[in-house]
Amino acid sequence: MKEFKVAVKISLRPELFDPEGKTIERAINRLGIGVQDARVSKVVEFKIHASNQGEARKKVEEIVKKFLANPVLHTYTIQIEE
Amino acid sequence: MKEFKVAVKISLRPELFDPEGKTIERAINRLGIGVQDARVSKVVEFKIHASNQGEARKKVEEIVKKFLANPVLHTYTIQIEE
Repeated sequence: MKEFKVAVKISLRPELFDPEGKTIERAINRLGIGVQDARVSKVVEFKIHASNQGEARKKVEEIVKKFLANPVLHTYTIQIEE
Repeated sequence: MKEFKVAVKISLRPELFDPEGKTIERAINRLGIGVQDARVSKVVEFKIHASNQGEARKKVEEIVKKFLANPVLHTYTIQIEE
């Protein structure tokens, strides 16, 4: 079994309104710095043991589907490195 | 003025306990998949206009220090691309 470092980034689907991002954007704009399209995502990082990259990815997909992302609301990307 | 895409990742300092990460870790472990050291970070992405990469970075540093990260609690990384 090898140890893999995993990072899962979970974002609101781009067509959904992101109130946290919009609030941050407005606050920055009030500071006098113009920014656009602020969006907030979450990254969950952890370590997992598996015999190879493929097995690690399968486990991580299961974790993401069960716990981390709701397909109605979220998109996600998975990074795995040894 | 060019448009830059910015991503700021804000994490709890590694020496601080991360209750959200720990809760996720326990839930995954109860599912029967062993994971370790789960930590949760936030990524704020936005667009900004500046005449060059250096000016963009200066503006982003100011935004991060004023709004996004508390140096007592957080570490952060900044990615900027044109």
